[in-house]
Order: sequence, then structure tokens, then C-alpha cells
Amino acid sequence: MSAGFAFELLKCAGAARRGRLHTAHGPVDTPAFMPVGTAGTVKAMTPLALRETGTQIILGNTYHLMLRPGAERIARLGGLHRFMDWPGPILTDSGGYQVMSLAKLRTISEAGVAFQSHLDGERHMLTPERAMEVQALLDATIAMALDECTAWPCDEGAAAQSMRLSMRWAARSRAAFAARSGYGQFGIVQGSVYPGLREESAKALTAIGFEGYAIGGLAVGEGQALMLATLEATVPRLPADRPRYLMGVGKPADIIAAVARGIDLFDCVIPTRSGRTGQAFTPRGAINIRNARHAEDPRPLVAGCRCPACRSLSRAYLHHLVKAGEILGAMLLSWHNLAYYQDLMAGLRQALEAERFAAAAAELAFELGRGDMAPAE
Amino acid sequence: MSAGFAFELLKCAGAARRGRLHTAHGPVDTPAFMPVGTAGTVKAMTPLALRETGTQIILGNTYHLMLRPGAERIARLGGLHRFMDWPGPILTDSGGYQVMSLAKLRTISEAGVAFQSHLDGERHMLTPERAMEVQALLDATIAMALDECTAWPCDEGAAAQSMRLSMRWAARSRAAFAARSGYGQFGIVQGSVYPGLREESAKALTAIGFEGYAIGGLAVGEGQALMLATLEATVPRLPADRPRYLMGVGKPADIIAAVARGIDLFDCVIPTRSGRTGQAFTPRGAINIRNARHAEDPRPLVAGCRCPACRSLSRAYLHHLVKAGEILGAMLLSWHNLAYYQDLMAGLRQALEAERFAAAAAELAFELGRGDMAPAE
Repeated sequence: MSAGFAFELLKCAGAARRGRLHTAHGPVDTPAFMPVGTAGTVKAMTPLALRETGTQIILGNTYHLMLRPGAERIARLGGLHRFMDWPGPILTDSGGYQVMSLAKLRTISEAGVAFQSHLDGERHMLTPERAMEVQALLDATIAMALDECTAWPCDEGAAAQSMRLSMRWAARSRAAFAARSGYGQFGIVQGSVYPGLREESAKALTAIGFEGYAIGGLAVGEGQALMLATLEATVPRLPADRPRYLMGVGKPADIIAAVARGIDLFDCVIPTRSGRTGQAFTPRGAINIRNARHAEDPRPLVAGCRCPACRSLSRAYLHHLVKAGEILGAMLLSWHNLAYYQDLMAGLRQALEAERFAAAAAELAFELGRGDMAPAE
Repeated sequence: MSAGFAFELLKCAGAARRGRLHTAHGPVDTPAFMPVGTAGTVKAMTPLALRETGTQIILGNTYHLMLRPGAERIARLGGLHRFMDWPGPILTDSGGYQVMSLAKLRTISEAGVAFQSHLDGERHMLTPERAMEVQALLDATIAMALDECTAWPCDEGAAAQSMRLSMRWAARSRAAFAARSGYGQFGIVQGSVYPGLREESAKALTAIGFEGYAIGGLAVGEGQALMLATLEATVPRLPADRPRYLMGVGKPADIIAAVARGIDLFDCVIPTRSGRTGQAFTPRGAINIRNARHAEDPRPLVAGCRCPACRSLSRAYLHHLVKAGEILGAMLLSWHNLAYYQDLMAGLRQALEAERFAAAAAELAFELGRGDMAPAE
């Protein structure tokens, strides 16, 4: 592990872990959820509001930032932390996933991915070396190796071919990573839902050696059962003394189940994206605040939640804002949903500390399934 | 003046006044700027952020709120203060101006204005009595009499006819106003740019008697010179012991000039609307942050401004947010622009207190004309 970048294991319960990641930009208590700051902002959130939700680390998207405003420009302005006023840790993805999902005319080769920007059609080439250069320019606390996110569904042959390309790219990514104290780089396990391939991938990555390991290619449509089975086949192959990051996950129930299987880090656009479309998370499941039953409900979204949407505003007001297309609706629901996610993570961490993780996870999952509270009298 | 609703005159400098309005929902230091909270929210601002800009009173739009979510619903939910979590004073307009500018198929008669909602086409009738009822349901601290905002340009005959209708509506509005301690109602002087009509209107309103007087029908295209000439012909006709409100004004230079002519209250959508389109106000004039010259400028919008956009973020970052269409860009620029407006008002109040208003107003106006600072080195 690089100097100053350390993963401290504080408590375990079965596969589940309570840990603390030490980085150049401060600590991260795990299990942790990373809000997604696509284009240098977690959408509709000020950095201060983010901090108030309990967020310690955020994710930045290399693809978006390299196209606009450009990694070199961000470097000249002092790096992403300074640019967006987020002094805490930032993990950046490699850009590979979004090149494949957003860019035009992409062609993949051994060298990397050639593509055209979805913004202006300009041609770019993303190689493992360029992905590392861009992430260094952004000053990412944690950089991700370039990989190909295996499509779903995918037969075993294609999954193997894709995974092996990702492993060769992982080796090149590692060679191109300029180690700095307190900074780290994660490799990404691929192999779709095939345990043999996941094992091969984990072996290849640990032979290279990274500061942490991500599990990619999941939450792409395979469903929760296959995702969890794949985690069970993969996590035991990863070193216990390094953090494990499940990419792009997920809904609250997925997070609880993945923590139980040994995952330490998560990221997902769900809380913020949902917040912009009127979906709100509660301990009893997600609700759509546009629903007419909320129109005169004077109660808060979630009683006891300390976010500004719940502290002194009603469901009726949030319903009105969302129906009227007001920006404040997106702001308040994004804030609430992130506060909910961070409270969920804090609850899991506390349960691990108090050695009641299994019971707490079961209670949380039970509550999630109960459905929203009864209509107001 | 109604019990508990009082205007205290603290200091004068020529026509300019430093005052304090006491209301059921707290004091308002004047000259004051009221941010516009059209649909139960000052767009892209939380109530806490609003408070942090120094805002003491906001404006709500009767037309928007009566259509969605409905005045009766807001009343059932405890009134507009509670609905939007703004415990401070709220002034609501009468709805007349927006019926004429936004609604469909409107027909004006002695009774009032019949119109169809721009949202769902539903038919409504806004009379002076209904305008008062709606504002009472909203729990407006200050209610406005129903008037017809005279069009521009407008010949003297038409202006007289329109103004006299507004005066008859003002009498009906007053009769329909249910006085409550700490609440007030303002009449609105009309008469376009014709001094004789303005005098007639002021006379008619003061004969009825209101807790304050607004000057309407300006900032509708007549230009600053005619607007100021009209103020000079109107303000001396209004009682010195009541607050004076210039509706829908305006740009910083207009506000400074109007304060010098005895205006105490202002409202305008400019700071928030501009903030959503990338325009930022500075003591040296407005700038468009989308302009390429800001793309790598590491300096704040306004050095020394304590808003979150200026405290720790660069023009380059704001440029990026606005170019990328990020909600945070609208949030930060709205906040900055309101902070700028409120700082401007605070500066005018301090100058009045320190008995250096004329010099301060001249300095502020000079700075506004200087243009933005030179490009970054």
C-alpha cells in the first residue's frame, strides 16, 4: 500500500467490515457511500450541504471532466478539489464506462478506446495511460484502472475475452500510475456472473497489486440474486487488508446486502437522479412525492430526519415544488436522499461497532419492505 | 395605521429615508429589497440561504399561488409562511399584473378580471374582493390592492381611464381588507407618466387611507429618465409617515436613484432570473459568466463577497457550471446576486445612518459604470 494511504479494519461481523480509509485528503469511515459528482458538482448540492449530509468522499467522472472543462484546465486551476471546493477525498472513475455508454462512434482495441465527444464530436483516445494521466491532472485521491465494463447479458467466452483485456489494461494502468503519499489506485475485477472468470480476474489484479479493489460489471441488469452470488464468489478472493468497492450500486437493499458480503465502498447516481424526478427515499421504501396523496399532507417526508426538506417543510410543500418544476424541489429532494443514504451507512457502521450488524441489517431490510406510512388523518 | 404595523422614520437625507417597518412577522429595515418568491419559493434558494443574504422580507405572487397549489390549500396548511418555512414578513401582489401578462382569454370589466389559467385553462375571476380573500388565505403580511397596471406606451386618456378604474378597485380592496394587528395593505398609485394623473391617483388613495403606498405602472419600458421624473412627481404627494414601494424595480442603478427620490421598498426578479441565465452582478456592473474570458479565471466573482459562490469558488468554476447547465450554477449565481442586492441595500442604509448618502450613492453609481475588472494575468 502506498505511503499515507491505509485501510484500517476496525471490526468484522461475518464478511461485513467496519473500517477506516486514510488518505491524503482525510479519512473515510467505511462502509461508505460516495455521491456522484459527474461534472465537478454533485448535482443540485453545494459542497457545504454535501458535508452536512455526512458525506466524506465523492466520485468524479473522468469522461465528463476530460471533455468539459478539460483535465488540463482543471490542473491549471489547482485540481478538482480546489476547483469544486471539495477538500475531502475524491475517487474518479477511469472514464471507460461512460465512453461506452455516452460517446459516439467508439472503437475498442488493444490500445484503448477511440471515441467522439457527445458534446462537440471531437475525437479522443482513452488508453490506460491517458486515463491515469487525466486522473492525475484531476488530482484524484483514488484513481481507477481503465477497464471494459462487460455488457449484460454476455456469454462466458465474450466475458472472458473482455475481462482479459481489462486485466492487460490494469497492468498498464498500474505501470502508468504515479504513486504519491496518501493517494491510491484501485483495480477492477470483471468477469460478468461467471465465478471462474471472477476468480481469474481477482488473481490477476492481486498479482499486480493495488491499494484497493473494485468489483465492476454488476448492477447492469443481472438482478440482485446474481449480483450477490457474484459478490460471494469474488470478495473472498480479494485481500482482506484492502478496501473493496462495488461500482454503481445501488438501492438501499442492495447496499445492505453487499455490506453483509464484505463491500466497503459504494457509489450510485440514484439518490441525486431520483431527487430530480420527485422520488424520495424513506426507511420504509421510496415514494414518489408527485403522487396526489401527498398534496395536502402536512407531515415531513421522514420524521426525525435532520435534512432541510424534513426539518421544517411538509410533503405537501415538496409535492407542490416538484409539480411546479421548481429548482428548490430538486435541491431539497437531492439533499434529503443523500442524507438518507448517509444515515443508512452511519447506521450500518454503528451496528458493526455495536456487534449487532446481522440484526440491524435484517431490521433495516424489513422496514424497507413495509411501504410508506398511512395517509394523514 | 393598523395596530402593530408601523413605519418608523429613522433618518432622512433630502428625499431619501432610512426607516424600519414593524410587522406581525418581524421588522424590515428600509430601504429594503424583496426577492420574488413566485410560486412559494424564491427560485433556487432555500429559506436559510435567503436569510443568509440579509433578506428580511420576500414577495409572493398571488396569481401563481391561487392557481397552484391554491390559496385555500395553503390556508389549510397553515398559510404561506409555514408552507414555505419563511417566518419573516411576506408581501403579496394582488395578482392583477400577472393575470394581464400570463393568463389566457382575459377580459377586464368594472367587476374585475375574468381569465383562464395558463396551467390548465380553468376559468377564474379576480375581483378586488377575491384578491383580498386570496391574500388573507395566504396570510400575507402586506396585501396589495387590486389594480390594473397601465400599459406602455399609453395616451393620457387611456391612462386616466385605467387609473380611475384602479382607484375604484382600491376603494373596494380597502373595504374588503380584514385588518389584523401587524398586517397591512398598500394602495397602488397609477397614472402612467402623466404627473396630473399621478397626483389625482395619490390623492384618491390617501383619501381612502392605506398602511403604505406603492407606485405601479413603471419599469414597463418608459426608461429611467421618465421613471425618475414620475417618481419626483408622485412621491411628494404621498404621506411621509407611510412606506413607499416601487413595484418591479429594478437594476442597481435604478434602485439607487429611486432611494434618492424617497422610495423605501423594491422587488424585482432580476437577481434570481439573471442568476439562472449566467448573469452575475458586481459593484462594477453585471457580467455574463458564460463569456470565454472567465473560463480560466481563478478569481472570485467579487472579492470580499461572503456568498458561497465568491467565498471559495472561482469564476472559472462558475463558468463551467453554467456552460454545463448544472443546477448548482443557477443556485450559486442566484445566491450571489441576492447577496449583492442585499449588500447594496445595506450599504445605502448605512450611508443614510452615517449622513453620507449623497456621496455614497454617487460612488456606487460611479463604480457601476466602471465595467468589470481587467482579465486575470
